[in-house]
Order: sequence, then structure tokens, then C-alpha cells
Amino acid sequence: MKKVLVLGAGQLARMMDLAGAPLGMDIKAFDVRTNKVVHPIDPEHIYGDLNQGIAECDVITAEFEHVAHSTLKVCEETNKLFPNSDAIKTGGDRRLEKALLDTCNIANAKHVVIENKTDFDSAINLLQLPIIFKSALEGYDGKGQWRLKDPQQADIIWQEMSEFIANASSSTPQGIIAEQMVAFDREVSIIGARSTTGEIAVYPLTENHHTNGILSVSLATPVAEALQAQAFEVFTKLTEKLNYVGVLAIEFFQVGEQLLVNEIAPRVHNSGHWTQQGADTCQFENHLRAICGLPLGSTQLIRPTAMVNIIGEDDIPDEIFSIPSVAMHWYDKEKRDGRKMGHINLCGQSEVELAERLMTLAAVLNKTSFPDLNNFAANYLANVSN
Amino acid sequence: MKKVLVLGAGQLARMMDLAGAPLGMDIKAFDVRTNKVVHPIDPEHIYGDLNQGIAECDVITAEFEHVAHSTLKVCEETNKLFPNSDAIKTGGDRRLEKALLDTCNIANAKHVVIENKTDFDSAINLLQLPIIFKSALEGYDGKGQWRLKDPQQADIIWQEMSEFIANASSSTPQGIIAEQMVAFDREVSIIGARSTTGEIAVYPLTENHHTNGILSVSLATPVAEALQAQAFEVFTKLTEKLNYVGVLAIEFFQVGEQLLVNEIAPRVHNSGHWTQQGADTCQFENHLRAICGLPLGSTQLIRPTAMVNIIGEDDIPDEIFSIPSVAMHWYDKEKRDGRKMGHINLCGQSEVELAERLMTLAAVLNKTSFPDLNNFAANYLANVSN
Repeated sequence: MKKVLVLGAGQLARMMDLAGAPLGMDIKAFDVRTNKVVHPIDPEHIYGDLNQGIAECDVITAEFEHVAHSTLKVCEETNKLFPNSDAIKTGGDRRLEKALLDTCNIANAKHVVIENKTDFDSAINLLQLPIIFKSALEGYDGKGQWRLKDPQQADIIWQEMSEFIANASSSTPQGIIAEQMVAFDREVSIIGARSTTGEIAVYPLTENHHTNGILSVSLATPVAEALQAQAFEVFTKLTEKLNYVGVLAIEFFQVGEQLLVNEIAPRVHNSGHWTQQGADTCQFENHLRAICGLPLGSTQLIRPTAMVNIIGEDDIPDEIFSIPSVAMHWYDKEKRDGRKMGHINLCGQSEVELAERLMTLAAVLNKTSFPDLNNFAANYLANVSN
Repeated sequence: MKKVLVLGAGQLARMMDLAGAPLGMDIKAFDVRTNKVVHPIDPEHIYGDLNQGIAECDVITAEFEHVAHSTLKVCEETNKLFPNSDAIKTGGDRRLEKALLDTCNIANAKHVVIENKTDFDSAINLLQLPIIFKSALEGYDGKGQWRLKDPQQADIIWQEMSEFIANASSSTPQGIIAEQMVAFDREVSIIGARSTTGEIAVYPLTENHHTNGILSVSLATPVAEALQAQAFEVFTKLTEKLNYVGVLAIEFFQVGEQLLVNEIAPRVHNSGHWTQQGADTCQFENHLRAICGLPLGSTQLIRPTAMVNIIGEDDIPDEIFSIPSVAMHWYDKEKRDGRKMGHINLCGQSEVELAERLMTLAAVLNKTSFPDLNNFAANYLANVSN
């Protein structure tokens, strides 16, 4: 029985555990807030401290990219850490990420690294408005981001940003990436795995929709071959360059038929949760297979599948369980505004059936917590009904 | 969050827990050997004794039908027990089971209850050879069964049986059912759920294959409507008569187009494990939904699916993970001859694809632990290739 230690004790570690238990794997989670190794589903069950956790496991992985570098170092020295610390750090620092993309000659938005006011001013000259500024470290779900559309707002934004940089608590110096805002047609992501033997398997491209900067719906449906091939090439280039082992997610802006990398996440990813019901093997199992040296599982789409995030809400009507194929996934977290509390997966034998079920779901869920779902479902239904 | 206590701490409680955690349910298991309430996946984690477990849960259920009647009584008095104790006891005593079938006028093999030598002798006269004798209590996986084909063996069999009855340890008196052996075409089972609101949902009939008296392979494929309707009618009659809540399994002998009930199991069932990969909602989730008063999930077959039991073997080559759609389910038990250690689910877009994948699986697995799998797969492939 393989023993796996996950750095981080959130929902991703939880779902790894649920996927790993049937494989006979023993998954424990390191909670960085309490510095304890805990049961991923029952975190009140404490096993010990990090050193003990590292000593007792066969393999170490991470469920988030903002792990303290000192922790990564200790783990890497045991030769048990997958993916490697450079890959994790790259996902956690937009400066490293952009440098990697440029080194690999992979299309992404035009960008400039900003360290001071001079950089900021020249970025505004080099890039066209609108520009999006993103903190190099710790930004997620729309946090640590500023949009500059009107040049008169530049001073206000610079003040906010410089305060943000000054108040950074991380040991690595905080920084900012200025990025040309891309007028994209849609946002998509590719989730894939690369194993210790170099085997690669990627899922079909997923279409992602955001509400208030947070992923609200992912949609996995049959994908045009050329687009899938483009994403596969990027995935292969990046994972081989990083000597990556595990699941990696790449978010893209799609502009016409071109994919521009938005960002990468060195871990299982929210936009891959649909794989729990919609794919031969889910991303959590494939991550575990990859880091444990097992052959990767088929990533084939079984049938059109959607994932709907539950954000800041812990009360879902039982009625949703009457919708065929609904699969509920709660994370057992306390309710907090903007917090990802769980997700709902939903499938259909056809896209029309999926869209109709999404309409039914939207009608049952409350409009406050799912403000865009009804519109999304109606548009989707209109598109696939043609 | 619903808190569920399962009587029994084996693989069925384990898989209920894995299905219940995403629903936000808290599942604990009562281990009848140690008299402790434990974590279903991590049984070394002990929560307390039965009284404490009963007091702290919202709902009680059972993963096996041989629960001590005193335990059932204590549970039922709290009004938390689903299914009810009469239903559980009926599944645990072939005499009650046969009486129920006869009361409901449901087709089953001709049978006689045996309590003494006179009953035994008259059974041999009433029924035609071959006759199968089955212990009323505690028999499973071919244990407590005798086959009489040659009248000259009658005395030897009677001696064995009477010793078996005399040595019974249960508080209820042991007994024997003599049953006309049925020359059946195949064995099938229906798994279904009935909820606290009386809603019923059944899965497609499953074809079952036994090796040395133990289920080795279950096959779920599209079913002829008339046959499915026949099974549905039996399921409805029995569950309504029993005022049943939860998942119930009914095993049948199929003779031509007729289904004869072999036995019923008042619980999730080995022949329903394929639902974890092959159905919209798995039997474990539907059992939990039923006993917690939630709407039942769709029982639709997603695609042809097979389940292969792993019996008395704990070493499966990693190579099986290369077969698309393979899903491994280990029970984390110590290896013992004849013990169910886990199972493998396998799907195909078509029956031919499923049969081909079963052939590949049979080629990878060792012949000692899976003696019949290659033959089974070859026959199945031949059948569906026509």
C-alpha cells in the first residue's frame, strides 16, 4: 500500500483521498495552518508533525503552489516529492511562469514584469490599454489583480499596488506582472498527467466560465481535434521542460483558433473536477497514479459533463437530487463569502440533454448564490439546439 | 450533515463511506467482532461503543443480515433503523424468506423446511433429485450447503447436516431448507432502492457468474424490457410488503423467460458493485439517499460494465491499469483463501469493446486466482461478436 503525503489539507487533498482509498492508497494531508499531518477527510484526526509525515510516507505531493519554500526543500531532499519543487514554485510565481513560457516559446499575452514606478510607467507605454496587473505571488480567484482601462486611474492603481507589494508577507519578494488584456472568445483549460515514466495523458479541453473572478462552471464536451492537438503540444512542452510528474492544469485564452496560455497550476485543478463523473479515470486518481509510478488511466470523455461550483453557500435544496446524473461533492467547510464549498457534476447522453439538465438545475438553485447559471444554461441550450 | 451508523464494518460499510463523504454525510461503522464503533476506512480509529454510536447518529443501517437480534432491537427502538429489523431478519433466515415469497405469490424453486429426519425423508420424496439443502441461517458463498444427486448419499448428508444444526451457535434455532435444484439458463440479480417516501428505483438486471460457489463476475448490459419488468414487479411486491427502505438485492434463476427468486439480501450487494462505474448513481449512494429521505438517483446504465471479484489474492499486476476504464476497488483486508479482497470494474462503449477489455484483463491476471475469467471473457466475446 502506497503512503502519500499531500502538502495542503483542503478539498483537493480530500478528493485525492477519496480517489486513493479504492486503490489501496493511504493518503494523509499536511495542514499548513496548524503544522500538523491530518486525515484529509477527518482533519481532527491528527497523525503528527511534518517530519513524522515525511518519514512515514512513500511519496509527497502538493495540492497548492504556495507552499513555503523551506517546506519544499525538506521534502525534496527525501527524493519523494512529485512534482519537483521547481515546478511547484513556477506555478506559484507568475514571473517564473512567464519566463518558462517565453523559454519554451509558448504563445501567451504580451507582458512586462514590474518592480518599481519606472517599470509601471513603461508598462503602460509598452502595452495597450486595457492592462491587467497581477501580483506575482499568492494571487488567486481574482485577488491581487487590478485592471487599468482609463489612464487617469494609473496613479490610484499604482498606489494600491505598491502598498500591496510593501505589505507582502512572503519570504520571496512580491512583484507584479503587467499583462495586455486579451479580447478572448472563451477561456479553456487542459488538465493532464505525466507519470514518473514520462507517460502523458490529457483530458479533453474544458470550457470555463467565471463569475466575479471565480470559476463558476466548467464544461467538458467533444473538442475539435486541431484545438486539442494545440493544447496537447503546450502540455507536452511544459511538462517535459519541467520534468513534471503529476497532474498539471493549463488555463488558456482562446482567440479565434489560437490558444494563449493564461496561467498554469502544478496540481489537480477546479476545472478538472468534472472528470470525477465524465471521464474514464478522474484527475485525482490520475495524479496518484502518476506520482506512484502506475500506468495512467484513460482520459476519455464518457459523455458531455458540466461542473457547477458552489460558492459561499451551504444550503442546496434536496430537490437537485431528482435531476438524473447529479453528483454532489461537498468539501465539509464552514460557509464564508466567496469560499468554494463544493461542486455539482452533471452529465447528459447528448449536449442537448446536458443543457436541459443544467436549465433544471438552475431553476432549483437560488439566484443569489448562482447568479449566472440560468443565463449560462439558456445560452448553452440555444447553442447546442441549433 | 446526516450521521449514519452502519451495523457491520466490512467492505460494504467502507464503500458506503466513500459514497457518502461527497454528499456531506458522516458514516461510522459498528464492528460486531470488537463491539466498537469505528471509522469504516480506518478501523483503528475507534469512536466508542454501540450505545454511543446509536445516540450520536441520525440514521442506522446494516451491511449484513446476520446482525444479532438483540442489536437490531436496540436500534429499532430509536426509530432510526432502515431497513426495519423484520426485513433484515427475513434476509438472514431462509425460512422467513421462503414464507415471504410464498405469501407474495412470487415464483421460486419448490422447497420444504426440514427440522428432523422425518422432514428430510419426506423432502426427498416430495422433491425430485437433485436437491440442494441450505442452512436457514448464516449460509453464504456456498457455505452450509449440500447437494444430493445420488439417493445413496442421503444418509451421509443427513449426518453432516444434523451435526451442522446441532453445532449452530446462533440464538435462533438453525434449520434447513430443501430446494428442488433448478436447471437454470443463467443467474441474474436485481438491485434497487426504495426510499422513506416509497419512491422506487431499480438498476438493470445483472448477469452473475459464480466460481466455486462465490460470485466471480457480474455483467451489466442492456436488458430485454419484459424481463426487466418481471424483476421490477418482484422488487416492488417484496419491498412494499416489507415496508422496505434502502437498497435490496434479489437473486434469480432465469429459466427460459421466467425468473425464479433464489434469495434476497436486505442490503447493498456484491452483484451491484458495477454501479460504481456503470450507472448514473451507484448503489451505495442510492442506499444512503433512500435511508436519509433524499430523492433517489437515476439507475440508468451508462455503458456496458463488468465487475470482476478479487478472491483470496492481494497481488494484482500494475499492468491492469493500462486497460482503459479499469477501476480498482481494494477493501484493505488481509489475504485469506476464498476471501473477497476487492473488485475490478471495467466498461466499454459497446459490449464488444467490454468483452475485448475483459480478454485483455484475463490475460494479465494470474490463472490461479482467476481460473474462469479467460473462458468467461472468450464466451462473452463470441456471443456479442455474432
